[in-house]
Amino acid sequence: MPTKRFFTLSGSCPDQIGIIARIASFIAEHKGWILESSYHADDGDSDHDSRYFMRMQVRADSLPFHLAEFRERFAPLAEELSMDWKISDSAVKRRVVVMVSKQEHCLYDLLARWQSRELDIEIPCVISNHDTFKAFVEWHGIPFHHVPISADNRHAAHAEIARIYDEVKGDTMVLARYMQILPAEMCTRYPGQVINIHHSFLPSFVGARPYHQAFRRGVKLIGATCHYVTPELDQGPIIEQDVIRIDHSDAVEDMVRYGKDIEKAVLARGLRYHLEDRVLLHANKTVIFR
Amino acid sequence: MPTKRFFTLSGSCPDQIGIIARIASFIAEHKGWILESSYHADDGDSDHDSRYFMRMQVRADSLPFHLAEFRERFAPLAEELSMDWKISDSAVKRRVVVMVSKQEHCLYDLLARWQSRELDIEIPCVISNHDTFKAFVEWHGIPFHHVPISADNRHAAHAEIARIYDEVKGDTMVLARYMQILPAEMCTRYPGQVINIHHSFLPSFVGARPYHQAFRRGVKLIGATCHYVTPELDQGPIIEQDVIRIDHSDAVEDMVRYGKDIEKAVLARGLRYHLEDRVLLHANKTVIFR
Amino acid sequence: MPTKRFFTLSGSCPDQIGIIARIASFIAEHKGWILESSYHADDGDSDHDSRYFMRMQVRADSLPFHLAEFRERFAPLAEELSMDWKISDSAVKRRVVVMVSKQEHCLYDLLARWQSRELDIEIPCVISNHDTFKAFVEWHGIPFHHVPISADNRHAAHAEIARIYDEVKGDTMVLARYMQILPAEMCTRYPGQVINIHHSFLPSFVGARPYHQAFRRGVKLIGATCHYVTPELDQGPIIEQDVIRIDHSDAVEDMVRYGKDIEKAVLARGLRYHLEDRVLLHANKTVIFR
Amino acid sequence: MPTKRFFTLSGSCPDQIGIIARIASFIAEHKGWILESSYHADDGDSDHDSRYFMRMQVRADSLPFHLAEFRERFAPLAEELSMDWKISDSAVKRRVVVMVSKQEHCLYDLLARWQSRELDIEIPCVISNHDTFKAFVEWHGIPFHHVPISADNRHAAHAEIARIYDEVKGDTMVLARYMQILPAEMCTRYPGQVINIHHSFLPSFVGARPYHQAFRRGVKLIGATCHYVTPELDQGPIIEQDVIRIDHSDAVEDMVRYGKDIEKAVLARGLRYHLEDRVLLHANKTVIFR
Repeated sequence: MPTKRFFTLSGSCPDQIGIIARIASFIAEHKGWILESSYHADDGDSDHDSRYFMRMQVRADSLPFHLAEFRERFAPLAEELSMDWKISDSAVKRRVVVMVSKQEHCLYDLLARWQSRELDIEIPCVISNHDTFKAFVEWHGIPFHHVPISADNRHAAHAEIARIYDEVKGDTMVLARYMQILPAEMCTRYPGQVINIHHSFLPSFVGARPYHQAFRRGVKLIGATCHYVTPELDQGPIIEQDVIRIDHSDAVEDMVRYGKDIEKAVLARGLRYHLEDRVLLHANKTVIFR
Repeated sequence: MPTKRFFTLSGSCPDQIGIIARIASFIAEHKGWILESSYHADDGDSDHDSRYFMRMQVRADSLPFHLAEFRERFAPLAEELSMDWKISDSAVKRRVVVMVSKQEHCLYDLLARWQSRELDIEIPCVISNHDTFKAFVEWHGIPFHHVPISADNRHAAHAEIARIYDEVKGDTMVLARYMQILPAEMCTRYPGQVINIHHSFLPSFVGARPYHQAFRRGVKLIGATCHYVTPELDQGPIIEQDVIRIDHSDAVEDMVRYGKDIEKAVLARGLRYHLEDRVLLHANKTVIFR
Repeated sequence: MPTKRFFTLSGSCPDQIGIIARIASFIAEHKGWILESSYHADDGDSDHDSRYFMRMQVRADSLPFHLAEFRERFAPLAEELSMDWKISDSAVKRRVVVMVSKQEHCLYDLLARWQSRELDIEIPCVISNHDTFKAFVEWHGIPFHHVPISADNRHAAHAEIARIYDEVKGDTMVLARYMQILPAEMCTRYPGQVINIHHSFLPSFVGARPYHQAFRRGVKLIGATCHYVTPELDQGPIIEQDVIRIDHSDAVEDMVRYGKDIEKAVLARGLRYHLEDRVLLHANKTVIFR
Repeated sequence: MPTKRFFTLSGSCPDQIGIIARIASFIAEHKGWILESSYHADDGDSDHDSRYFMRMQVRADSLPFHLAEFRERFAPLAEELSMDWKISDSAVKRRVVVMVSKQEHCLYDLLARWQSRELDIEIPCVISNHDTFKAFVEWHGIPFHHVPISADNRHAAHAEIARIYDEVKGDTMVLARYMQILPAEMCTRYPGQVINIHHSFLPSFVGARPYHQAFRRGVKLIGATCHYVTPELDQGPIIEQDVIRIDHSDAVEDMVRYGKDIEKAVLARGLRYHLEDRVLLHANKTVIFR
């Protein structure tokens, strides 16, 4: 990670000869200093053509212009290459709305990283279907919204969550062990913005109570999965996963406890990749430039 | 692991007060020196009663008798406790029949461990549906049986495998990437004797071509599972599992390559637990005393 | 982990025939229900005799007496066996004094576990040489003591820390990235009570700035070590360790960030082992009954 | 890993603006199809300037010329950039001389990978100071040289090893648990060609009997390190490392056994990185493009 201010240019396009040459030449013409860069070409197969993915960090002070002008100047080349792309500025903080229920581990972990600026983001608010963490969150100077959800008010509650998210100009929504399923329309409305931490090593044990499922099957490792939320429950593109060893002496309660440690670590890593534009979507999979 | 000759007593029974006291007292009365011992009590729940599991290693030279007399003297106590139990002698080598197809990694790995006596077993023969490794196996002085399998001869081939296994007095059959499904009757005939290495982190990706399935799902870790073979394909009790990290740049071929390293390591560990009577079955799960 | 109230009996003694039998029989005579038990016999060598270690959890409601009477009745047997032993009651919370400086990760992590009762302890106070976390700690209802340390007041400051620790009846002191070296006399005064988290995979990189040392050496994994503090800096008995993979693109700052995740996880595991009497000292090493 | 024939261009040079642009443009001008590419810029500090590292794989059939002409055409650009560089052809097999003593695990592992062409190399010969594996190696059709080493013949033996290595045109020498120290002059003569597997997590436990050292210190993880051999014993640039968990019940013999599994895995990974030109030296450290 560079310590100086930089722009991150990332994107993907159909593969062809000369992509790196053209983009790197564009940067070099403007005296851009490339700090870190990563490329990946997907092989392609009978179902789809080969696709090219890239991510570059360029020192902000090496370029003679800022994002708006960069975007304008780069657009024609991107169009020629049919590239889906974006550019971001390390000096502009991302706005991450955190959703929680009653479990504390991911929330404490995220706030510790936020308060030490290890995670250099704005948290415009925390939203919860319970008021368990209201005082704790507010103590940190972060607004807390209690949006209860029941069978009766589900539709209105989801609308309220979307309203708050829009109002605070959130660009990322983190389900930090938020124990409610988002409706398909919200997943579709914020594509690639909603990140969940699932308490199993997907695709094993989809759905409810994965630790109980794992216990019954007698697996020797349990895991956690950080993924983008899509309308298909637990089927979204996987960003990060990890596992931890258990044994026959561990009851479901022990697995829950071990699992928390994995969940918060995997969520923190996955969220960081997302915030640093290290994650590029490729159908239902991800390219992660670490 | 003790280096001196020892007996391993292992078993399980319904839990009650005083089991350890009674068994340990039995051993102590005969001046038995316990080298290593492990106990586990399953909690029990509404579906089943609490069950007790144990494993002890006793120095052979500390007891005034050998296995036959031990068995006779211990039987009444075991009966009182309704214990399923067995005792084995570290000086008697287990007889492990290895089954392979065309992949080399598990076979080389097992033979390296065997020839250095790290794995102190007899391999009375290797059986394969191909003759790929005939010369290699025979060079080690181990008989090799080529038992081809086709749609036509399946029944006869399986009978031949069972015949050889019985003839050489095998007590363990290892499917070291043997790419044929054993018939249900063979699984039933040799319960708790047939060990398979499956190339996925079960229960993810059961069935054929797990690496292709993993590639399509975009998981970030792949794994391997060592389990007992039962009539239900890939559903037997899990002995050992492990995973390895992959990323977007890994094609299926790379995953196969990484997977081999996990497969042979997991198989070797699982087999060792089995051979040292460290694995106790508990319905479709295992208690592993490491 | 049992969920019902239990006593934990742990200890070690010179190895001989019949130890388990005698202790388990003592428990059984009083109708004690053993929930979990672990034994280990150290092999011994030319330098020292073989030693026996054990840990048992007994259901509190299965015994006809409480700790005081247990201690009285068990003492003669323990004396015969020359056993160093203790017994604790799961219903009595341990009193853990947390020491911090300016880094937040271990403190947030411990308080999250404490507030969810995953770590079911009393934290009678937090002591720090800085006042950075005063408000945060006090918000949780935990007293905070600011004991600044400088070259001039070192002796008085250490005395003050000991005074507070004694006053609050602490039984465990956790150095949660407390960046001051405790004097030898304090290590000696509270043997087996002071736990530190060191930010390297000891014995690599003892002393100051281990991440800088690791960076210069070009290692591919960095680690953390939880250990008891003894008068010899970074030489105390190791309780737990773990590592995380890094690569050439990681600067020292990245290593610090990765390291935090390992440090808090390793400290939490090590502390739990200690609090549950799973750690038995054996010269400068530990036996950990997990 | 691409499956088609490709050239690998790798190197490093002082960092400046426009390096990627110029090199990628050179490739693109000749219609070279870049399959995989990696870049890293070292930050630099007060002691040294920032340095740039790169590795590219280009489809062989996309270029209008072969290596000789590539080298000629690329040389002027490389000179302008003051680049240390090389290019290799995936169709030309590397020539790896394997050195062993009496331990089998790394040798079996390498030969299994070689025979399945997972490791697509030539092994022109195996050299050993013992004849333990003569028959095994020769059975594979690989020449075996027994070069005994004693206090008396050390100099002559080393000369003989160098003579054989030169004669068979080795380009890589692998010390696959070869239990002899190479003389400084041989390390200097074949810089970046000699790879060792050390049975500890360096820099812990340098020198002899690392498992005994680890046992005495009571560490909870043991490891292995693959590194280039330099005149300073166990101090060469580290290529790869890994660890495995142990506990108090593991004797030195168990650690040796666990260690073997780590050693062969780490050696195989490190060797692969080396053979695929993924390792770039940077003073006493390595940049590894995975």
